[in-house]
Amino acid sequence: MKVGQVIGTVTSTINHPFFDGERLLICDLIDGSDSTGDYLICANRVDAGTGDTVLILDEGTSARQMYDTDTGPIRSVVVGIVDDVHEDRSL
Amino acid sequence: MKVGQVIGTVTSTINHPFFDGERLLICDLIDGSDSTGDYLICANRVDAGTGDTVLILDEGTSARQMYDTDTGPIRSVVVGIVDDVHEDRSL
Amino acid sequence: MKVGQVIGTVTSTINHPFFDGERLLICDLIDGSDSTGDYLICANRVDAGTGDTVLILDEGTSARQMYDTDTGPIRSVVVGIVDDVHEDRSL
Amino acid sequence: MKVGQVIGTVTSTINHPFFDGERLLICDLIDGSDSTGDYLICANRVDAGTGDTVLILDEGTSARQMYDTDTGPIRSVVVGIVDDVHEDRSL
Amino acid sequence: MKVGQVIGTVTSTINHPFFDGERLLICDLIDGSDSTGDYLICANRVDAGTGDTVLILDEGTSARQMYDTDTGPIRSVVVGIVDDVHEDRSL
Repeated sequence: MKVGQVIGTVTSTINHPFFDGERLLICDLIDGSDSTGDYLICANRVDAGTGDTVLILDEGTSARQMYDTDTGPIRSVVVGIVDDVHEDRSL
Repeated sequence: MKVGQVIGTVTSTINHPFFDGERLLICDLIDGSDSTGDYLICANRVDAGTGDTVLILDEGTSARQMYDTDTGPIRSVVVGIVDDVHEDRSL
Repeated sequence: MKVGQVIGTVTSTINHPFFDGERLLICDLIDGSDSTGDYLICANRVDAGTGDTVLILDEGTSARQMYDTDTGPIRSVVVGIVDDVHEDRSL
Repeated sequence: MKVGQVIGTVTSTINHPFFDGERLLICDLIDGSDSTGDYLICANRVDAGTGDTVLILDEGTSARQMYDTDTGPIRSVVVGIVDDVHEDRSL
Repeated sequence: MKVGQVIGTVTSTINHPFFDGERLLICDLIDGSDSTGDYLICANRVDAGTGDTVLILDEGTSARQMYDTDTGPIRSVVVGIVDDVHEDRSL
Protein backbone atom coordinates (compact mmCIF):
# COMPACT_ATOMS: atom_id res chain seq x y z
CA MET A 1 0.00 0.00 0.00
CA LYS A 2 1.00 3.62 -0.43
CA VAL A 3 0.26 6.94 1.24
CA GLY A 4 -1.20 9.67 -0.95
CA GLN A 5 -2.76 13.11 -0.79
CA VAL A 6 -6.07 13.82 -2.47
CA ILE A 7 -5.47 16.70 -4.90
CA GLY A 8 -8.59 16.59 -7.04
CA THR A 9 -11.34 14.67 -8.76
CA VAL A 10 -12.03 13.13 -12.16
CA THR A 11 -15.49 13.06 -13.69
CA SER A 12 -16.59 10.84 -16.56
CA THR A 13 -20.06 10.44 -18.08
CA ILE A 14 -19.36 7.95 -20.89
CA ASN A 15 -18.09 4.96 -18.94
CA HIS A 16 -18.74 1.47 -17.61
CA PRO A 17 -21.93 1.50 -15.45
CA PHE A 18 -19.83 0.51 -12.42
CA PHE A 19 -18.52 4.08 -12.32
CA ASP A 20 -21.94 5.79 -12.56
CA GLY A 21 -22.17 8.26 -9.71
CA GLU A 22 -18.65 7.58 -8.50
CA ARG A 23 -16.49 10.62 -7.74
CA LEU A 24 -12.98 9.33 -8.44
CA LEU A 25 -10.10 10.93 -6.55
CA ILE A 26 -6.75 12.06 -7.96
CA CYS A 27 -4.25 10.94 -5.32
CA ASP A 28 -0.71 12.28 -5.46
CA LEU A 29 1.56 9.54 -4.10
CA ILE A 30 3.78 10.87 -1.33
CA ASP A 31 6.92 9.66 0.43
CA GLY A 32 7.21 11.25 3.86
CA SER A 33 6.05 14.80 3.19
CA ASP A 34 7.25 14.91 -0.42
CA SER A 35 5.41 14.12 -3.64
CA THR A 36 6.91 11.19 -5.56
CA GLY A 37 5.74 12.71 -8.84
CA ASP A 38 3.39 9.77 -9.41
CA TYR A 39 -0.36 9.51 -8.84
CA LEU A 40 -3.29 7.12 -8.94
CA ILE A 41 -6.96 7.63 -9.74
CA CYS A 42 -8.79 5.96 -6.85
CA ALA A 43 -12.31 5.07 -5.86
CA ASN A 44 -13.39 6.73 -2.62
CA ARG A 45 -14.85 4.34 -0.04
CA VAL A 46 -14.10 6.36 3.12
CA ASP A 47 -15.51 9.80 2.22
CA ALA A 48 -12.07 11.34 1.74
CA GLY A 49 -11.86 14.93 0.46
CA THR A 50 -9.34 17.17 -1.24
CA GLY A 51 -6.32 17.75 0.99
CA ASP A 52 -6.73 14.55 3.00
CA THR A 53 -3.78 12.21 3.46
CA VAL A 54 -4.99 8.73 2.59
CA LEU A 55 -4.00 5.07 2.53
CA ILE A 56 -4.18 3.67 -1.01
CA LEU A 57 -4.57 0.05 -2.03
CA ASP A 58 -3.90 -0.79 -5.67
CA GLU A 59 -5.20 -4.33 -6.22
CA GLY A 60 -8.35 -5.44 -8.00
CA THR A 61 -9.53 -8.15 -5.62
CA SER A 62 -9.11 -5.82 -2.64
CA ALA A 63 -10.87 -2.98 -4.42
CA ARG A 64 -13.87 -5.17 -5.27
CA GLN A 65 -14.10 -6.23 -1.62
CA MET A 66 -14.40 -2.57 -0.64
CA TYR A 67 -17.61 -2.62 -2.74
CA ASP A 68 -18.73 -5.99 -1.29
CA THR A 69 -18.79 -7.49 -4.79
CA ASP A 70 -16.88 -10.13 -6.74
CA THR A 71 -17.40 -8.26 -9.99
CA GLY A 72 -16.67 -4.73 -11.12
CA PRO A 73 -13.81 -3.20 -13.10
CA ILE A 74 -11.89 -1.48 -10.33
CA ARG A 75 -8.32 -1.63 -9.05
CA SER A 76 -7.24 1.42 -7.00
CA VAL A 77 -9.14 2.47 -3.89
CA VAL A 78 -8.71 4.70 -0.86
CA VAL A 79 -9.08 2.39 2.17
CA GLY A 80 -8.40 4.84 4.99
CA ILE A 81 -7.81 8.45 6.00
CA VAL A 82 -4.37 8.75 7.63
CA ASP A 83 -4.32 10.43 11.03
CA ASP A 84 -0.64 10.25 11.70
CA VAL A 85 2.57 9.23 9.95
CA HIS A 86 5.34 8.56 12.44
CA GLU A 87 8.74 7.85 10.91
CA ASP A 88 12.42 7.96 11.79
CA ARG A 89 14.47 8.75 8.68
CA SER A 90 17.70 8.67 10.73
CA LEU A 91 17.72 4.88 10.66
CA MET B 1 -6.27 3.67 -12.41
CA LYS B 2 -4.56 6.24 -14.57
CA VAL B 3 -5.60 9.06 -16.89
CA GLY B 4 -4.36 8.86 -20.48
CA GLN B 5 -4.79 10.47 -23.86
CA VAL B 6 -5.53 8.36 -26.92
CA ILE B 7 -2.75 9.10 -29.44
CA GLY B 8 -3.21 6.30 -31.95
CA THR B 9 -4.09 2.71 -32.76
CA VAL B 10 -2.33 -0.63 -33.15
CA THR B 11 -3.43 -3.21 -35.69
CA SER B 12 -2.45 -6.87 -35.67
CA THR B 13 -3.66 -9.67 -37.95
CA ILE B 14 -1.62 -12.63 -36.63
CA ASN B 15 -2.86 -12.83 -33.05
CA HIS B 16 -4.98 -14.64 -30.47
CA PRO B 17 -8.62 -14.87 -31.72
CA PHE B 18 -9.71 -12.72 -28.74
CA PHE B 19 -8.21 -9.69 -30.54
CA ASP B 20 -9.89 -10.33 -33.91
CA GLY B 21 -11.65 -7.15 -34.93
CA GLU B 22 -10.42 -5.21 -31.91
CA ARG B 23 -8.97 -1.75 -32.59
CA LEU B 24 -6.46 -1.36 -29.76
CA LEU B 25 -5.68 2.16 -28.57
CA ILE B 26 -2.26 3.65 -27.83
CA CYS B 27 -2.83 5.66 -24.66
CA ASP B 28 -0.19 8.14 -23.55
CA LEU B 29 -0.27 8.21 -19.73
CA ILE B 30 -0.64 11.76 -18.45
CA ASP B 31 -0.17 13.53 -15.12
CA GLY B 32 -2.22 16.72 -15.00
CA SER B 33 -1.74 18.09 -18.52
CA ASP B 34 1.73 16.60 -19.04
CA SER B 35 2.77 13.31 -20.59
CA THR B 36 4.55 10.96 -18.17
CA GLY B 37 6.54 9.46 -21.05
CA ASP B 38 4.86 6.10 -20.51
CA TYR B 39 1.98 4.48 -22.41
CA LEU B 40 -0.31 1.47 -22.45
CA ILE B 41 -1.97 -0.41 -25.31
CA CYS B 42 -5.62 -0.65 -24.26
CA ALA B 43 -8.80 -2.31 -25.42
CA ASN B 44 -11.54 0.17 -26.23
CA ARG B 45 -14.88 -0.55 -24.52
CA VAL B 46 -16.32 2.98 -24.52
CA ASP B 47 -15.87 4.05 -28.18
CA ALA B 48 -13.00 6.41 -27.37
CA GLY B 49 -11.19 8.08 -30.28
CA THR B 50 -7.85 9.75 -30.94
CA GLY B 51 -7.44 12.86 -28.81
CA ASP B 52 -9.85 11.76 -26.08
CA THR B 53 -8.77 11.90 -22.45
CA VAL B 54 -9.61 8.53 -20.93
CA LEU B 55 -9.67 6.57 -17.68
CA ILE B 56 -7.46 3.49 -17.91
CA LEU B 57 -7.68 0.34 -15.84
CA ASP B 58 -4.73 -2.05 -16.01
CA GLU B 59 -5.88 -5.30 -14.40
CA GLY B 60 -6.82 -8.57 -16.07
CA THR B 61 -9.88 -9.48 -14.01
CA SER B 62 -11.36 -6.00 -14.51
CA ALA B 63 -10.59 -6.04 -18.21
CA ARG B 64 -12.32 -9.38 -18.69
CA GLN B 65 -15.40 -8.01 -16.86
CA MET B 66 -15.56 -5.20 -19.41
CA TYR B 67 -16.05 -8.00 -21.98
CA ASP B 68 -18.54 -9.88 -19.75
CA THR B 69 -16.31 -12.94 -19.82
CA ASP B 70 -14.18 -14.93 -17.37
CA THR B 71 -11.73 -15.85 -20.08
CA GLY B 72 -9.70 -13.88 -22.59
CA PRO B 73 -6.10 -12.70 -22.62
CA ILE B 74 -6.56 -9.03 -21.84
CA ARG B 75 -5.23 -6.69 -19.14
CA SER B 76 -5.45 -2.97 -20.06
CA VAL B 77 -8.74 -1.35 -20.96
CA VAL B 78 -10.26 2.11 -21.33
CA VAL B 79 -13.20 2.20 -18.90
CA GLY B 80 -14.38 5.80 -19.38
CA ILE B 81 -13.99 9.03 -21.32
CA VAL B 82 -12.94 11.80 -18.95
CA ASP B 83 -15.08 14.95 -19.04
CA ASP B 84 -13.24 16.96 -16.45
CA VAL B 85 -10.09 16.79 -14.35
CA HIS B 86 -10.30 19.12 -11.39
CA GLU B 87 -7.14 19.38 -9.31
CA ASP B 88 -5.41 21.71 -6.91
CA ARG B 89 -1.62 21.39 -7.26
CA SER B 90 -1.09 24.07 -4.59
CA LEU B 91 -1.81 21.55 -1.85
CA MET C 1 9.75 -10.16 -2.77
CA LYS C 2 11.85 -7.28 -1.52
CA VAL C 3 13.96 -6.48 1.53
CA GLY C 4 12.99 -3.40 3.52
CA GLN C 5 13.72 -1.59 6.75
CA VAL C 6 10.92 -0.56 9.07
CA ILE C 7 11.20 3.21 9.54
CA GLY C 8 7.86 4.07 11.10
CA THR C 9 4.14 3.52 11.43
CA VAL C 10 0.92 4.85 9.93
CA THR C 11 -2.26 5.20 11.95
CA SER C 12 -5.73 5.63 10.53
CA THR C 13 -9.07 5.77 12.35
CA ILE C 14 -11.49 6.33 9.47
CA ASN C 15 -10.90 3.21 7.38
CA HIS C 16 -12.19 -0.18 6.24
CA PRO C 17 -12.92 -2.38 9.31
CA PHE C 18 -10.21 -4.80 8.16
CA PHE C 19 -7.62 -2.27 9.34
CA ASP C 20 -9.15 -1.69 12.79
CA GLY C 21 -6.41 -2.18 15.35
CA GLU C 22 -3.73 -2.81 12.72
CA ARG C 23 -0.46 -0.93 13.17
CA LEU C 24 0.76 -0.55 9.60
CA LEU C 25 4.50 -0.30 9.03
CA ILE C 26 6.34 2.16 6.75
CA CYS C 27 9.00 0.01 5.10
CA ASP C 28 11.84 1.71 3.25
CA LEU C 29 12.81 -0.61 0.37
CA ILE C 30 16.53 -1.31 0.42
CA ASP C 31 19.04 -2.75 -2.05
CA GLY C 32 22.04 -4.17 -0.23
CA SER C 33 22.59 -1.59 2.53
CA ASP C 34 21.23 1.37 0.54
CA SER C 35 17.73 2.81 0.39
CA THR C 36 16.14 2.60 -3.07
CA GLY C 37 14.13 5.76 -2.36
CA ASP C 38 10.90 3.78 -2.55
CA TYR C 39 8.69 2.43 0.26
CA LEU C 40 5.62 0.33 0.96
CA ILE C 41 3.03 0.52 3.73
CA CYS C 42 2.80 -3.05 5.02
CA ALA C 43 0.72 -5.07 7.43
CA ASN C 44 2.78 -6.56 10.25
CA ARG C 45 2.27 -10.30 10.76
CA VAL C 46 5.59 -11.14 12.41
CA ASP C 47 5.79 -8.53 15.18
CA ALA C 48 8.44 -6.47 13.39
CA GLY C 49 9.49 -3.16 14.94
CA THR C 50 11.15 0.07 13.86
CA GLY C 51 14.71 -0.56 12.68
CA ASP C 52 14.14 -4.20 11.76
CA THR C 53 15.21 -5.47 8.35
CA VAL C 54 12.26 -7.36 6.92
CA LEU C 55 11.13 -9.51 4.00
CA ILE C 56 8.21 -7.89 2.15
CA LEU C 57 5.63 -9.58 -0.03
CA ASP C 58 3.46 -7.32 -2.20
CA GLU C 59 0.62 -9.51 -3.50
CA GLY C 60 -3.00 -9.59 -2.39
CA THR C 61 -3.60 -13.32 -2.37
CA SER C 62 -0.43 -13.89 -0.35
CA ALA C 63 -1.29 -11.10 2.06
CA ARG C 64 -4.76 -12.50 2.71
CA GLN C 65 -3.21 -15.92 3.43
CA MET C 66 -1.07 -14.29 6.12
CA TYR C 67 -4.43 -13.45 7.77
CA ASP C 68 -5.87 -16.93 7.10
CA THR C 69 -8.73 -15.38 5.13
CA ASP C 70 -9.94 -15.28 1.53
CA THR C 71 -11.33 -11.80 1.97
CA GLY C 72 -9.88 -8.51 3.17
CA PRO C 73 -8.53 -5.51 1.30
CA ILE C 74 -4.80 -6.00 1.80
CA ARG C 75 -1.80 -6.31 -0.53
CA SER C 76 1.57 -5.59 1.15
CA VAL C 77 2.71 -7.56 4.17
CA VAL C 78 5.88 -8.23 6.17
CA VAL C 79 6.37 -12.01 6.05
CA GLY C 80 9.67 -12.34 7.90
CA ILE C 81 12.36 -10.60 9.92
CA VAL C 82 15.69 -10.89 8.09
CA ASP C 83 18.59 -12.27 10.15
CA ASP C 84 21.26 -12.14 7.52
CA VAL C 85 21.79 -10.88 3.98
CA HIS C 86 24.76 -12.57 2.34
CA GLU C 87 25.66 -11.23 -1.07
CA ASP C 88 28.62 -11.05 -3.44
CA ARG C 89 28.46 -7.83 -5.47
CA SER C 90 31.72 -8.72 -7.26
CA LEU C 91 29.87 -11.15 -9.53
CA MET D 1 -0.38 -4.24 -22.86
CA LYS D 2 2.86 -3.02 -24.41
CA VAL D 3 4.48 -3.04 -27.82
CA GLY D 4 7.90 -4.71 -28.09
CA GLN D 5 10.45 -5.86 -30.62
CA VAL D 6 11.81 -9.39 -30.50
CA ILE D 7 15.61 -9.09 -30.20
CA GLY D 8 16.61 -12.63 -29.24
CA THR D 9 15.91 -15.85 -27.39
CA VAL D 10 16.65 -17.44 -24.03
CA THR D 11 17.27 -21.15 -23.63
CA SER D 12 17.14 -23.05 -20.36
CA THR D 13 17.49 -26.80 -19.79
CA ILE D 14 17.21 -26.99 -15.99
CA ASN D 15 13.72 -25.61 -15.44
CA HIS D 16 10.09 -26.25 -14.56
CA PRO D 17 8.64 -28.87 -16.99
CA PHE D 18 6.18 -26.23 -18.26
CA PHE D 19 9.07 -24.60 -20.12
CA ASP D 20 10.38 -27.81 -21.76
CA GLY D 21 10.67 -27.17 -25.48
CA GLU D 22 9.60 -23.52 -25.17
CA ARG D 23 11.74 -20.99 -27.04
CA LEU D 24 11.33 -17.86 -24.91
CA LEU D 25 11.67 -14.49 -26.62
CA ILE D 26 13.62 -11.45 -25.40
CA CYS D 27 11.30 -8.54 -26.18
CA ASP D 28 12.69 -5.02 -26.04
CA LEU D 29 9.83 -2.75 -24.92
CA ILE D 30 9.38 0.15 -27.32
CA ASP D 31 7.57 3.48 -27.24
CA GLY D 32 6.82 4.68 -30.75
CA SER D 33 10.00 3.74 -32.60
CA ASP D 34 12.32 4.10 -29.58
CA SER D 35 13.45 1.51 -27.06
CA THR D 36 12.34 2.25 -23.50
CA GLY D 37 15.43 0.49 -22.14
CA ASP D 38 13.27 -2.18 -20.53
CA TYR D 39 12.50 -5.71 -21.70
CA LEU D 40 10.45 -8.79 -20.90
CA ILE D 41 11.12 -12.49 -21.46
CA CYS D 42 7.95 -13.76 -23.15
CA ALA D 43 6.43 -17.04 -24.23
CA ASN D 44 5.77 -17.19 -27.97
CA ARG D 45 2.23 -18.24 -28.91
CA VAL D 46 2.02 -16.60 -32.33
CA ASP D 47 5.23 -17.85 -34.01
CA ALA D 48 6.95 -14.46 -33.74
CA GLY D 49 10.60 -14.23 -34.81
CA THR D 50 13.58 -11.96 -34.22
CA GLY D 51 12.92 -8.47 -35.58
CA ASP D 52 9.12 -8.72 -35.33
CA THR D 53 7.15 -5.97 -33.60
CA VAL D 54 4.78 -7.67 -31.17
CA LEU D 55 1.95 -7.06 -28.74
CA ILE D 56 2.91 -8.17 -25.21
CA LEU D 57 0.58 -9.11 -22.39
CA ASP D 58 2.12 -9.37 -18.91
CA GLU D 59 -0.48 -11.10 -16.73
CA GLY D 60 -0.50 -14.66 -15.45
CA THR D 61 -4.18 -15.49 -15.98
CA SER D 62 -4.05 -14.20 -19.54
CA ALA D 63 -0.82 -16.05 -20.25
CA ARG D 64 -2.25 -19.34 -19.01
CA GLN D 65 -5.30 -18.83 -21.26
CA MET D 66 -2.96 -18.57 -24.25
CA TYR D 67 -1.95 -22.15 -23.34
CA ASP D 68 -5.57 -23.23 -22.74
CA THR D 69 -4.70 -24.21 -19.18
CA ASP D 70 -5.54 -23.06 -15.67
CA THR D 71 -2.15 -24.11 -14.38
CA GLY D 72 1.40 -23.35 -15.42
CA PRO D 73 3.98 -20.88 -14.11
CA ILE D 74 3.85 -18.24 -16.80
CA ARG D 75 3.19 -14.49 -16.85
CA SER D 76 4.48 -12.70 -19.99
CA VAL D 77 3.35 -13.75 -23.45
CA VAL D 78 3.37 -12.42 -27.01
CA VAL D 79 -0.30 -12.31 -28.07
CA GLY D 80 0.03 -10.79 -31.55
CA ILE D 81 2.37 -9.64 -34.31
CA VAL D 82 1.86 -5.93 -34.92
CA ASP D 83 1.19 -4.94 -38.53
CA ASP D 84 0.87 -1.23 -38.06
CA VAL D 85 1.29 1.40 -35.36
CA HIS D 86 -0.56 4.58 -36.23
CA GLU D 87 -0.02 7.46 -33.84
CA ASP D 88 -0.21 11.23 -33.72
CA ARG D 89 2.41 12.59 -31.30
CA SER D 90 1.35 16.17 -32.06
CA LEU D 91 -1.66 15.80 -29.75
CA MET E 1 9.53 -12.78 -16.90
CA LYS E 2 13.00 -11.38 -16.34
CA VAL E 3 16.57 -12.65 -16.44
CA GLY E 4 18.62 -12.28 -13.26
CA GLN E 5 21.88 -13.32 -11.68
CA VAL E 6 21.97 -14.91 -8.26
CA ILE E 7 24.23 -12.74 -6.09
CA GLY E 8 23.43 -14.00 -2.60
CA THR E 9 20.97 -15.36 -0.07
CA VAL E 10 18.63 -14.05 2.61
CA THR E 11 17.99 -15.94 5.83
CA SER E 12 15.10 -15.32 8.18
CA THR E 13 14.13 -17.26 11.32
CA ILE E 14 11.10 -15.27 12.52
CA ASN E 15 8.75 -15.68 9.57
CA HIS E 16 5.63 -17.30 8.15
CA PRO E 17 5.95 -21.14 8.38
CA PHE E 18 5.86 -21.32 4.57
CA PHE E 19 9.42 -19.99 4.54
CA ASP E 20 10.82 -22.44 7.12
CA GLY E 21 13.89 -24.08 5.64
CA GLU E 22 13.71 -22.04 2.43
CA ARG E 23 16.98 -20.48 1.26
CA LEU E 24 15.78 -17.36 -0.56
CA LEU E 25 17.95 -16.01 -3.37
CA ILE E 26 18.93 -12.39 -4.01
CA CYS E 27 18.62 -12.04 -7.79
CA ASP E 28 20.12 -9.00 -9.47
CA LEU E 29 17.92 -8.22 -12.48
CA ILE E 30 20.00 -7.94 -15.65
CA ASP E 31 19.45 -6.57 -19.14
CA GLY E 32 21.82 -8.21 -21.60
CA SER E 33 25.05 -8.42 -19.59
CA ASP E 34 24.37 -5.32 -17.47
CA SER E 35 22.71 -4.98 -14.09
CA THR E 36 19.50 -2.93 -14.16
CA GLY E 37 20.13 -1.79 -10.58
CA ASP E 38 17.00 -3.62 -9.43
CA TYR E 39 16.65 -6.98 -7.69
CA LEU E 40 14.11 -9.49 -6.43
CA ILE E 41 14.20 -11.92 -3.50
CA CYS E 42 13.14 -15.25 -5.03
CA ALA E 43 12.30 -18.73 -3.91
CA ASN E 44 14.62 -21.35 -5.41
CA ARG E 45 12.82 -24.27 -7.07
CA VAL E 46 15.57 -25.34 -9.50
CA ASP E 47 18.61 -25.63 -7.20
CA ALA E 48 20.20 -22.42 -8.53
CA GLY E 49 23.37 -21.18 -6.85
CA THR E 50 25.32 -17.94 -6.52
CA GLY E 51 26.62 -16.79 -9.89
CA ASP E 52 23.94 -18.60 -11.93
CA THR E 53 21.96 -16.71 -14.56
CA VAL E 54 18.30 -17.50 -13.96
CA LEU E 55 14.80 -17.01 -15.34
CA ILE E 56 12.59 -15.19 -12.82
CA LEU E 57 8.82 -15.23 -12.62
CA ASP E 58 7.19 -12.62 -10.38
CA GLU E 59 3.55 -13.69 -10.00
CA GLY E 60 1.86 -15.27 -7.00
CA THR E 61 -0.28 -17.86 -8.76
CA SER E 62 2.70 -19.06 -10.78
CA ALA E 63 4.93 -19.17 -7.72
CA ARG E 64 2.40 -21.27 -5.78
CA GLN E 65 2.23 -23.71 -8.71
CA MET E 66 5.99 -24.18 -8.46
CA TYR E 67 5.24 -25.50 -4.94
CA ASP E 68 2.26 -27.59 -6.15
CA THR E 69 -0.02 -25.71 -3.75
CA ASP E 70 -2.93 -23.27 -3.99
CA THR E 71 -1.92 -21.59 -0.74
CA GLY E 72 1.29 -20.04 0.50
CA PRO E 73 2.46 -16.43 0.69
CA ILE E 74 4.92 -16.35 -2.19
CA ARG E 75 5.29 -14.26 -5.34
CA SER E 76 8.81 -14.33 -6.88
CA VAL E 77 10.44 -17.58 -7.91
CA VAL E 78 13.34 -18.82 -10.01
CA VAL E 79 11.80 -21.11 -12.65
CA GLY E 80 14.89 -22.01 -14.69
CA ILE E 81 18.66 -21.78 -14.99
CA VAL E 82 19.55 -19.97 -18.20
CA ASP E 83 22.00 -21.78 -20.50
CA ASP E 84 22.19 -19.22 -23.24
CA VAL E 85 21.00 -15.71 -24.03
CA HIS E 86 21.11 -15.00 -27.74
CA GLU E 87 20.27 -11.46 -28.74
CA ASP E 88 20.84 -9.01 -31.56
CA ARG E 89 21.01 -5.46 -30.18
CA SER E 90 21.62 -4.06 -33.68
CA LEU E 91 17.90 -4.36 -34.51
